[in-house]
Amino acid sequence: MPWPAVQIALPGWMDQVVLDGGAGPYPSDDAKMRLVVRLSRENVLRGTGGPFGAAIFERRSNRLVGVGVNSVVRLGNSVLHAKMVAYMIAQARLGTWSLAAPGLPQHELVTSCEPCAMCLGAVLWSGVTRVICGAAREDAARLDFEEGPVFPESWQYLEGRGIEVVRGVLREEARGVLELYRKRGGEIYNG
Amino acid sequence: MPWPAVQIALPGWMDQVVLDGGAGPYPSDDAKMRLVVRLSRENVLRGTGGPFGAAIFERRSNRLVGVGVNSVVRLGNSVLHAKMVAYMIAQARLGTWSLAAPGLPQHELVTSCEPCAMCLGAVLWSGVTRVICGAAREDAARLDFEEGPVFPESWQYLEGRGIEVVRGVLREEARGVLELYRKRGGEIYNG
Repeated sequence: MPWPAVQIALPGWMDQVVLDGGAGPYPSDDAKMRLVVRLSRENVLRGTGGPFGAAIFERRSNRLVGVGVNSVVRLGNSVLHAKMVAYMIAQARLGTWSLAAPGLPQHELVTSCEPCAMCLGAVLWSGVTRVICGAAREDAARLDFEEGPVFPESWQYLEGRGIEVVRGVLREEARGVLELYRKRGGEIYNG
Repeated sequence: MPWPAVQIALPGWMDQVVLDGGAGPYPSDDAKMRLVVRLSRENVLRGTGGPFGAAIFERRSNRLVGVGVNSVVRLGNSVLHAKMVAYMIAQARLGTWSLAAPGLPQHELVTSCEPCAMCLGAVLWSGVTRVICGAAREDAARLDFEEGPVFPESWQYLEGRGIEVVRGVLREEARGVLELYRKRGGEIYNG
């Protein structure tokens, strides 16, 4: 019973797109959101996954530490929402299971859409201390993406643990990519 | 900016322990739970991670399809709770992002402890249609493991999506492994 290993690699276009984006600087929430919305759009246009992008930044220096795009269908793995990929890539890069490990600067998650129940729960374990969202839960729901058991109390729980939450940054741009995906008949893997 | 790939492999002892356990049959919830509690204990005794084990079975045939143990510290990855590893290994084995894909038999998750907020959200996307739990949330909380925003409504949400939930199977045995971990001074990575 030899169990398979699971491999998670970003799509091949990622380096070029991030570099084309100038690899920064990302001096504001808008600038950061512009990058992740771009990642979400590229993921749709290049056919590598669902219409979702995410990134991890250092809060103070604004340095880009990790990126993610939805990779559920491409890699055959239901866990690989954009945010989960971004957490894992950032942690692999820094060699730590917590982005709040001693000696590290504070980190933030920037995501093109509000997190589903899984990704919201994962915020707490990732070590980020700030979450910036573009599109809203209802924007994703309009495509019949199911977001799971997320309640107002779920967000309050995060905030009660000292996590700062900012919602609706470049929401229209982020929602536009969801709409693009719908028009192209993209697969709704969380139906 | 070459992003690292993320690799998820089970600890080296896994094959032997599963085989020693007779590789089945697993004719009952108790038999399945006995396996995952054994995995959780081995993970503690061999120093490869937190006191949590999980497995995916076919519901009808009782065939073992995937296994997981907590691998957060071992692999430097906050996502790798036992349940998440089990979903990913099972999906990699079957080559699908949903254990409810057309043509597949129904699957169930067996876990030595009730899921945290992340793992509970992930149940929905994994495709399992039944969840069997050993130890309770409060058993993990007694070790200062933080379980995140899981509410009674979260469980109702799952059940409303047709997922059957069974709790408290071999709870004492499962709790015993949590206690073993505590006594050995194991790291509380979700503090």
